[in-house]
Amino acid sequence: MARSWALDYDTANCTIGATVQIIGEKWTFLVLREAFNGVRRFDDMQRRTRAPRQILSDRLARLVGEGLLRKTPYQERGQRSRAEYRLTEKGIDLFPVMVALLAWGDKHAATAGGPAVTLTHRDCGAPAHLELTCTRGHMLESARDVTPLPGPGARRIA
Amino acid sequence: MARSWALDYDTANCTIGATVQIIGEKWTFLVLREAFNGVRRFDDMQRRTRAPRQILSDRLARLVGEGLLRKTPYQERGQRSRAEYRLTEKGIDLFPVMVALLAWGDKHAATAGGPAVTLTHRDCGAPAHLELTCTRGHMLESARDVTPLPGPGARRIA
Repeated sequence: MARSWALDYDTANCTIGATVQIIGEKWTFLVLREAFNGVRRFDDMQRRTRAPRQILSDRLARLVGEGLLRKTPYQERGQRSRAEYRLTEKGIDLFPVMVALLAWGDKHAATAGGPAVTLTHRDCGAPAHLELTCTRGHMLESARDVTPLPGPGARRIA
Repeated sequence: MARSWALDYDTANCTIGATVQIIGEKWTFLVLREAFNGVRRFDDMQRRTRAPRQILSDRLARLVGEGLLRKTPYQERGQRSRAEYRLTEKGIDLFPVMVALLAWGDKHAATAGGPAVTLTHRDCGAPAHLELTCTRGHMLESARDVTPLPGPGARRIA
């Protein structure tokens, strides 16, 4: 078995590690799912994610603190002021993560009725999906077509 | 503000929800990262993820149980038999999730030196990345170009 080059490098500055420190938790993904679905209010999120209120409150605060959601007040006639949560640009940039989770789930974890959601191109209505390509325009079929190499920030273990 | 259609549908069969039930946890992502990096042995994974041993053992068992990793024995000369963990096809299918996490992290969470890892096309060496496209071949720039619609398994709330 070939020894992985990764073993000679430090993982401390791995950006997957840094990312999952922020979002690598079930409830956080479900809150982000709701935000991408256009669901913005605490009570709606709570009902749809079934997150305990304290957990939902905590995850929303974390996402606001990390700059993925912004909190804006709204007020309906005769009601007290409430908060809405909307994705920032930094949050919207997570969309490929959600699409990738959805695609995997549709293939490996869908119930008998099939996927609950279909993603479509807003302009033409055709189904949307992720493709793995290289900058020379080749289509890559799977992880087997990809070679991970040390990047500019890679740190060899002394 | 337009009310989201999602509010009229049940989230119980959402495949993002089903997926993050399996992998929506920091240590699980880090274990999968190691597997995609070709790191297969418990001690290497432990050192590189810095996961407490009991947590790593638990997450590996979960991933084996869910069919994302398979455990195979190996034995080095004069040593006792140990286990290696390798991705199954179901596990390999998670690669776009890892690539999407990496891309977001490289943009929003990289340290000063830049990304620690670069993904390249095995055949031509050019950098590899995810693109969001539709089946008619249009490139989609962001979540704003995508309209989520109820899929075949969508269940309206009574």
